[in-house]
Amino acid sequence: MNPGVLERIDTLIPEIEPDMIADRRDFHRFAEAGWTEFRTASRIARRLKTLGYDVSTGRSVCRDETRMGLPSPEEIETHWQRAHAEDGDPEFLESMHGGFTGVVGRLRNGVGPTLGLRFDIDALGVSESAESSHRPVSEGFASIHPGVMHACGHDGHAATGLGLARLFSEMRDMISGTLVLVFQPAEEGVRGARSMVEAGVLDGVDFMIGHHLMTGVATGEIIPGMGGYAATRKLDVEILGAPAHAGGSPEAGRNALLAAATAVLNLHALPRHRDGFTRINVGQIHAGTGRNVIPDRARLVAEVRGETSALCDSMYERAIRVIEAAATMHGCDSTVRPMGAAGTAESSPELVSRVVSIAESLGESVLEPLTKIGGSEDFTEMMLRIQQQGGQAVNIGIGADRSGIRQGDADRSAILGAHTSVYDFDEQALRHAMRLLSLLAVDLLDDPSGTPSG
Amino acid sequence: MNPGVLERIDTLIPEIEPDMIADRRDFHRFAEAGWTEFRTASRIARRLKTLGYDVSTGRSVCRDETRMGLPSPEEIETHWQRAHAEDGDPEFLESMHGGFTGVVGRLRNGVGPTLGLRFDIDALGVSESAESSHRPVSEGFASIHPGVMHACGHDGHAATGLGLARLFSEMRDMISGTLVLVFQPAEEGVRGARSMVEAGVLDGVDFMIGHHLMTGVATGEIIPGMGGYAATRKLDVEILGAPAHAGGSPEAGRNALLAAATAVLNLHALPRHRDGFTRINVGQIHAGTGRNVIPDRARLVAEVRGETSALCDSMYERAIRVIEAAATMHGCDSTVRPMGAAGTAESSPELVSRVVSIAESLGESVLEPLTKIGGSEDFTEMMLRIQQQGGQAVNIGIGADRSGIRQGDADRSAILGAHTSVYDFDEQALRHAMRLLSLLAVDLLDDPSGTPSG
Amino acid sequence: MNPGVLERIDTLIPEIEPDMIADRRDFHRFAEAGWTEFRTASRIARRLKTLGYDVSTGRSVCRDETRMGLPSPEEIETHWQRAHAEDGDPEFLESMHGGFTGVVGRLRNGVGPTLGLRFDIDALGVSESAESSHRPVSEGFASIHPGVMHACGHDGHAATGLGLARLFSEMRDMISGTLVLVFQPAEEGVRGARSMVEAGVLDGVDFMIGHHLMTGVATGEIIPGMGGYAATRKLDVEILGAPAHAGGSPEAGRNALLAAATAVLNLHALPRHRDGFTRINVGQIHAGTGRNVIPDRARLVAEVRGETSALCDSMYERAIRVIEAAATMHGCDSTVRPMGAAGTAESSPELVSRVVSIAESLGESVLEPLTKIGGSEDFTEMMLRIQQQGGQAVNIGIGADRSGIRQGDADRSAILGAHTSVYDFDEQALRHAMRLLSLLAVDLLDDPSGTPSG
Amino acid sequence: MNPGVLERIDTLIPEIEPDMIADRRDFHRFAEAGWTEFRTASRIARRLKTLGYDVSTGRSVCRDETRMGLPSPEEIETHWQRAHAEDGDPEFLESMHGGFTGVVGRLRNGVGPTLGLRFDIDALGVSESAESSHRPVSEGFASIHPGVMHACGHDGHAATGLGLARLFSEMRDMISGTLVLVFQPAEEGVRGARSMVEAGVLDGVDFMIGHHLMTGVATGEIIPGMGGYAATRKLDVEILGAPAHAGGSPEAGRNALLAAATAVLNLHALPRHRDGFTRINVGQIHAGTGRNVIPDRARLVAEVRGETSALCDSMYERAIRVIEAAATMHGCDSTVRPMGAAGTAESSPELVSRVVSIAESLGESVLEPLTKIGGSEDFTEMMLRIQQQGGQAVNIGIGADRSGIRQGDADRSAILGAHTSVYDFDEQALRHAMRLLSLLAVDLLDDPSGTPSG
Repeated sequence: MNPGVLERIDTLIPEIEPDMIADRRDFHRFAEAGWTEFRTASRIARRLKTLGYDVSTGRSVCRDETRMGLPSPEEIETHWQRAHAEDGDPEFLESMHGGFTGVVGRLRNGVGPTLGLRFDIDALGVSESAESSHRPVSEGFASIHPGVMHACGHDGHAATGLGLARLFSEMRDMISGTLVLVFQPAEEGVRGARSMVEAGVLDGVDFMIGHHLMTGVATGEIIPGMGGYAATRKLDVEILGAPAHAGGSPEAGRNALLAAATAVLNLHALPRHRDGFTRINVGQIHAGTGRNVIPDRARLVAEVRGETSALCDSMYERAIRVIEAAATMHGCDSTVRPMGAAGTAESSPELVSRVVSIAESLGESVLEPLTKIGGSEDFTEMMLRIQQQGGQAVNIGIGADRSGIRQGDADRSAILGAHTSVYDFDEQALRHAMRLLSLLAVDLLDDPSGTPSG
Repeated sequence: MNPGVLERIDTLIPEIEPDMIADRRDFHRFAEAGWTEFRTASRIARRLKTLGYDVSTGRSVCRDETRMGLPSPEEIETHWQRAHAEDGDPEFLESMHGGFTGVVGRLRNGVGPTLGLRFDIDALGVSESAESSHRPVSEGFASIHPGVMHACGHDGHAATGLGLARLFSEMRDMISGTLVLVFQPAEEGVRGARSMVEAGVLDGVDFMIGHHLMTGVATGEIIPGMGGYAATRKLDVEILGAPAHAGGSPEAGRNALLAAATAVLNLHALPRHRDGFTRINVGQIHAGTGRNVIPDRARLVAEVRGETSALCDSMYERAIRVIEAAATMHGCDSTVRPMGAAGTAESSPELVSRVVSIAESLGESVLEPLTKIGGSEDFTEMMLRIQQQGGQAVNIGIGADRSGIRQGDADRSAILGAHTSVYDFDEQALRHAMRLLSLLAVDLLDDPSGTPSG
Repeated sequence: MNPGVLERIDTLIPEIEPDMIADRRDFHRFAEAGWTEFRTASRIARRLKTLGYDVSTGRSVCRDETRMGLPSPEEIETHWQRAHAEDGDPEFLESMHGGFTGVVGRLRNGVGPTLGLRFDIDALGVSESAESSHRPVSEGFASIHPGVMHACGHDGHAATGLGLARLFSEMRDMISGTLVLVFQPAEEGVRGARSMVEAGVLDGVDFMIGHHLMTGVATGEIIPGMGGYAATRKLDVEILGAPAHAGGSPEAGRNALLAAATAVLNLHALPRHRDGFTRINVGQIHAGTGRNVIPDRARLVAEVRGETSALCDSMYERAIRVIEAAATMHGCDSTVRPMGAAGTAESSPELVSRVVSIAESLGESVLEPLTKIGGSEDFTEMMLRIQQQGGQAVNIGIGADRSGIRQGDADRSAILGAHTSVYDFDEQALRHAMRLLSLLAVDLLDDPSGTPSG
Repeated sequence: MNPGVLERIDTLIPEIEPDMIADRRDFHRFAEAGWTEFRTASRIARRLKTLGYDVSTGRSVCRDETRMGLPSPEEIETHWQRAHAEDGDPEFLESMHGGFTGVVGRLRNGVGPTLGLRFDIDALGVSESAESSHRPVSEGFASIHPGVMHACGHDGHAATGLGLARLFSEMRDMISGTLVLVFQPAEEGVRGARSMVEAGVLDGVDFMIGHHLMTGVATGEIIPGMGGYAATRKLDVEILGAPAHAGGSPEAGRNALLAAATAVLNLHALPRHRDGFTRINVGQIHAGTGRNVIPDRARLVAEVRGETSALCDSMYERAIRVIEAAATMHGCDSTVRPMGAAGTAESSPELVSRVVSIAESLGESVLEPLTKIGGSEDFTEMMLRIQQQGGQAVNIGIGADRSGIRQGDADRSAILGAHTSVYDFDEQALRHAMRLLSLLAVDLLDDPSGTPSG
C-alpha cells in the first residue's frame, strides 16, 4: 500500500472529527426509531450528494415487501411530517414517504473492486434519562423526542459513516475501485437489513464491512471479527374469530382466545432439536375486550431462535403450522406478520486476519474474535449475501467504553448496547473507528487478495 | 275391530309361550354381541322362512357403509365360524358373511297399511355372573360365551319377535295389510339401526313399533310411549404421526400424543349451547409404546351427545374440526371412524294414545309416557325415518321386573337395562308384550286412522 | 285500605313529577359509573335528610370487604374530587370517601312492618350518542362525562326513589310502619348489592321491592314479578411469575403466560352439569410486555354463570382450583379478585299476586311474570336475603318504551337495558312507577298479610 | 509389575475360555429381564462361592427402596418359580425372593487396595429372531424365553465376570489387595445400579472398572474410556380421579384424562435451558376404559434427560411440579414412580491413561476415548460414587463386532447394543476382555498410583 495513505488519513481526521461529533450529537438529539428515521436519513442523503456521491434512497434501496416490523401507516406519516418540521431535507424526504428510510451513497473511482460499509442509523424506544449525571443531558444533546433514544450507539455509527464519506471524498486520488456506503434503517428488532439486501444494494460488492461501538470494551481496543449470532425470526400473530354473548349464545362465537391459548402451549411444546439449541417464546398475548363476550381477536408477539439459520427456520415453519392449526381448530383465521429476521453468520476469516494486521499496524490493542455472540444482529443478512456471492464480510467491534468499569471480556449486553436510559459511549472511539475503517478500505481496494502491508 | 281377534290371540298365546321362553333361553345361552349375532340371526331367518315369511338378510338389509362400530374383520370371521359350529343356519349364514346380521321378515296379506315391528337381538360385552343365585345359572341357560351376556333383555325382544311371527302367521285370516318384522343387530352402542334404515327396510312402512322390557317397572305395567332420548354420536379417532428417538432426534418425530392431548383439551373446551344441553367425552386415550420414543400413534374413544339431533350434530362437526386441526398442528394424519349414532325422537302422540287404549282394554296398568329419557336408543333412527315419511312410530316400555324391589318410577338404568352381570327379567313379561303388540298391530291394520275399539 | 290513599297519591304526583323528571335529567347529565356515584349519591342523601329521613351513608351501608369490581384508588379519588367540583354535597361526600356510595334513608312512622325499596343509581361505561335525533342531546341533558352514560335507566330509578321519598314524607299520616329507601351503587357488573346486604341494611326488612324500567315494554304495562335470573360470579385473575431473557436463560423464568394459557383451556373444559346450564368465559387475557422476555404477569377477566346459584358456585370453585393449579404448575402465584356476584332468585309468589291486584286496580295492563330472565341482576342478592329472613321480595318491570316499536314480549335486551349509546326511555313511565310502588307500599304496610283491597 | 503376571494370564485363559463361552450361551439361552434374573444370578452366586469368594446376595446388595422399574410382584414371583424349574440355585434363590437379583463376590488377598469390577447381567424385552441365519439359532443357544433376549451383550459381560472370577482365584498368589466382583441386575432402563450403590457394595472400593462389548467396533480394538453419558430419569405417573357417567352426571367425575392431557402439554412446554441440552418425552399414555365414562385413571410413561445431572434433575423437579398441579387442577391424585435414573459421568483420566498403556502393552488397537456418548448407562451411578469417595473409575469399550461391516467410529447404537432381534457379538471378544481386565486389575492392585509397567 501506498505509504502516504495513513499519513493522509491522519492529516484529514483532525479536520473531520469535530463535525463527526457534532453530527453524532445532532442525530442523538433528534433520535428516530426504526422506519421513521426521516430526518436522519434525508440529511445523510443531502450530505452525501454534496460530497459528490451518487445517492440512492427510497424504494430503490428498501424493497417494500421485505420491510419488517413497520409502525402503523399513521405513525409513519406523523413522523414524516415531523421530519419536515425538524429540517429534514425536503427533496429526499419525498422519496422516503411511507417509511423507506435507507440511503446508499456510491463513490466510483476507476477500476478496482467494490467495497461496502454499513452504518445503522435507528434509535430505540427508550426514554432517555433526565439525570444531570447523564452526559447527553449535561452537554445538551439528550433526545428531544419523548420515548425515543439512541441507546445503542447507532448515532455514532451514522456519524462515522458521514465522516468516512468526507474522508474518502477527499482521498479520491488514492482510491481505485468503488465505495458503497450503506446507511440502514431499523436494525433494532433486526427489521431493516433484509429489505436493503433484497433491493439489490449489495449486488457486485466484493467486501462488506460492518462495525459496532462496544461500551464494554475500552477505547483503543478492537475486536477484529464477530460471529456466532443466534438466528432469529420475530413474528406477530393476529387470530380473528367471531364474538358472541358468552352467557346467551356461546356456540355462536369463534373463540380467538381458545385458539391463542392452544397455540401458546403447543408453540412452547415444539420439540427440541438434535442439531443445536432452539428457542421459542410467546412474549405477549392480548385478547378480548369484555368479560361476558367470546373474544373474537387475539394477538401474539413471538420469537424463535436457533443456533443456526436452519434450526431457526425449521422452528419458524413449525410455529406457523401450530398457529394456523390452532386458529382453524376454533374456526378462526390467522395472520402472521414477520417482524424481524436475522440469520447466523460468521466473519470471513481472511478478512478477520486483514483486520488484525491493519489494527495492529495502527497500534490498536487487538482482542480475540468473538465467535459465540448468542444475540442477534441483522448485519448477518448482509454478511451472508456477500459470502453467497463469493465475497468477504466482517463485523468489527470498536471499543468505546467510557464507564471506567472495564469488563474483562466484552459481554453480550455490551455488544448489543445497554439499551438503557443512561447508555453513553466514548466519542473518542469515533476517531479510532474512522482510522481503522478507512485504512482497511483503502488497503482492500488497493490489494484485494494480498496480505496487508505491515 | 273384529271382536274375535283378542279371543284368538288369547287362544294362541298359551300354545306359543313355551317356545318363546325356550327361544329366549337359547338366545341367552348363545349370547352374541353386535355384528356377530350370526347364530341368532340365521336361526331367526330360518324360522321366519318356515313360518311363511318373505325373508331378507345380509347386505340387502344392512347397508355396508353405514354399519358402525364393527369388530375387526378377524373377529367377525371367528364368530362366523363359531356360529357354524353352534348350529347356525348354513344357508342364511352364507348371506351374513362379513357381519351383515340383520333379518327382515315380511308377511303380505291383502290390501292394507304396512306395519313394522322392531326387535333388537344383540348381547353385551359383560361377563355373566356365575353365582347360583343368578337364575340363568340355576336354571341352566347362562351364557356359554365368556365375556358376552344378554344383560339388556334383547334375548327377550328377539324371542317375542319370533312368538309374534308365529302368532301373525296363524292369524293371517284376520289381518289385512303387510307386517314387517325387523330383527336388528348392534343396538348396543347405537350402531345398527342406521344401516337397516339406509338399506331401505322401512320404505313404505306406515306404522313402526318398538318395545323394551323394563326391569324397573313391574310386570303388567306399560309405558305407552317413550321419547326425549339424547342424540348421540360415537367416534373412534386414530392419529398417526412418526416415531423418533426422543433423546437423540426429537425433532424427527411427528408427535401423535401431543396432537391427541391438544385434541382432548379442546374437545372438552367446545362451547356450551344456547339451545339445550350438550355433552362431549373422551372416554379413552391410548398412545405410544416406548418410553424414549416419540409416540407415532394415538387412539381416542369419544362420544358427543345433545338434547336434540341438531345439537349433537353441531357438536360432532366441531369435534371433527378440533381433531383434524390438532393432528395437522403436529404434522399428523387423523382418521375418524363413526362408531354409533342415534338421534333424538319422540313417540307419535296419536300412536301413544292408541297404545294407551289398547293397553287399558287389556287390563294393563298404564303409566305416564316418558318424555325425558336422557339416554340413547337407536330405534330413534327408525322412528325419525317413519315420521319423515309421514308415518307414526312408538316405542313402548313393557314392565318386566322380577326384583321385587319395585321402583316408584322407571329410572334410566331400568330403561337401558342394568348392563350388569346379574341382570335378569321376568319371563312372564313376554306374554304381556306379545298380547299388547299383537292386538295393537291387528287393530292398526284394521283401522289405521280410527280410534281403537274399546 | 284507607280509600283516601290513592286519592292522596294522585293529588301529590302532579306536584312531584316535574321535579322527578328534572332529577332524572340531572342524574343523566352527570352520569357516574359504579363506585364513583359521588355527586349522585351525596345529593340524594342531602335531599333525603331535608325530607326528614334518617340517612345513613358511607361504610355503614357499604361493607368494605364485599365491595366488588372497584376502580383503582386513583380513579376513585379523581371522581371524588370531580364530585366536589360538580356540586356534590360536601358533608355526605366526606362519608363516601374511598368509594362508599350507597345511601339509605329510613322513615319510621309508628308501629308496623318494615318495607324496603331499592333504587340502583349507577351509569355505564358507554359513550352517549351525540346525534341530534337522540333526545338527551336535543333536549340538553346528555352526559357531560365522556365515556359514561345512563344507558340502562338507573337515572330514572334514582329519580323515582327521590319522588317516592317526598311522597311518603308528605303522606306520613297515612303510613304505619317503616320505610327503607335503599339507593344502591354499582349494579352494573352486579358489584354493589352484596356490600349493602352485608352491611346489614336489610336487617329487619319484611318486604323488599325492586323495579326496572323496561324499554321493550309499553308505558302503562306492568310485569308483576321477575325471576329466573342466571346466577353469575365475575372474577379477575392475576398470575405472577418471574421474567427472564427468553433467548439467554429461558429456564430462569416462571412463565405466567403458560400458566394463563393452561388455565384458559382447562376453565373452558370444566364439565357440564347434570342439574342445568352452566357457562364459563374468559373474556380477556393480557400478558407480557416484550417479545424476547418470559412473561412474568398475566391477567384474565372471566365470568361463570349457572342456572342456579348452586351451579354457579360449583363452577366458581372449580374455576378457582384450575387457576391456582395452573399457576402452581409454572411456579407462579395467582390472585383472584371477585368482581361481581349475583345469585338466582324468584319473586315471592304472594307478593307477585299483590302486585297484580294493585296494578289492576290502577288500570295498568298486567303482563305475565317473567320466570326465565337468563341475564343477571344483583337485586337477587337482596331478594334472597329477605326471603332467607322470612320476608317477601319482588322485582317489578315498568313499561317505559318510547321507541314505538313495541315488542310482543319483553325480550332480554329490553330487560337489561339496551346498553347502547342511543338508549332512552319514556319519562311518563316514572309516574306509573311512582303510583304503583307507592300504593303497593302503603297497602303492604297497612295490611301485610291480607289480600289487597280491590 | 511382576513380569510373570501376563504369562500366567495367557496360560490360564485358554483353559477358561471354553467355559466362559459355554456360560455366555447358557445365559443367552435362559435370558432373563431386569429384576427377574433369578436363574442367572443364583448360578453366578453358586459359582463364586465354589471358587472361594465371599458371596453376598439379596437385600444386602440391593437396597429395596431404591430398586426402580420393578415388574409387578406377581410377575416377579412367576419368574422366581420358573428359575427353580430351570435349575437355579435353590439356596441363593431363597435370598433373592422378591426380586433382589444382585450378586457380589469378594476375594480378599492380603493388604492392598480394593478394586471392583461390574458386570451387568440382564436381558431385554425383545423377541429373538428365529431366522436360521441368526447364529444363536443355528448354533442352538437362542433364548427359550419368548419375548426376552440378550440383545445388548450382557450375557457376555456376565460370562466374562465368571471367567475373571476363576482367573483371579487361580492367581491369588500374584494379587495383593481385594477384588470385588459386582454382578448387577436391571441395567436396561438404568434401574439397578443405584440400589447396589445405596446398599453400600462400593464402600471402600478404590478403583472401579466397567466394560461393554461394542458391536460397532472391531474385535481387537479398545475404547479406553467412555463418558459424557446423558443424565436421565425415568418416571411412571399414575393419575387417579373418579369415574362418572359422562352423559348423565359429568360434573360428578374427576377427570384423570384431562389432567393427563394438561400434564402432557405442559411437560413438553417446559423451558429449554441455558446450560445445555435437555429432553423430555411422554412416551405413553393410557387412560379410561369406556366411551361414555369420565376416565378415572390415567397412566403416563415418561423420561427426562439432560446434558448434565443438574440439568436432568432440574427438569425432573419441574416435571413433578407440572404433574402434581395437573392432577390437582382436576381434583385428582397423582403418584410418580421413579423407573430408572442415571447421572452423567466421566471416566477418570488417570485410569483412562492406565487403560491405554495396558491395552497397548497387550497389542490391542487403542481408539480415542468417547466423551460424548449421549445415551445413558447406569454404571455412571457407580463411577460417580467411586469418584465422590476419592477413587477412580473407568468404563471400557471392548470391540466385539462380527458384522464385517466395521463402522469408522463407534456410534451410539453400537455402544448401547443394537437392541434388535438379530443382535449378536463376536465371542472372541470375551478373551480380549478377560486379558485386558485381568492385567489391568492386577497391575492396579500392585501399583495403585504408579505408571503402568510398559
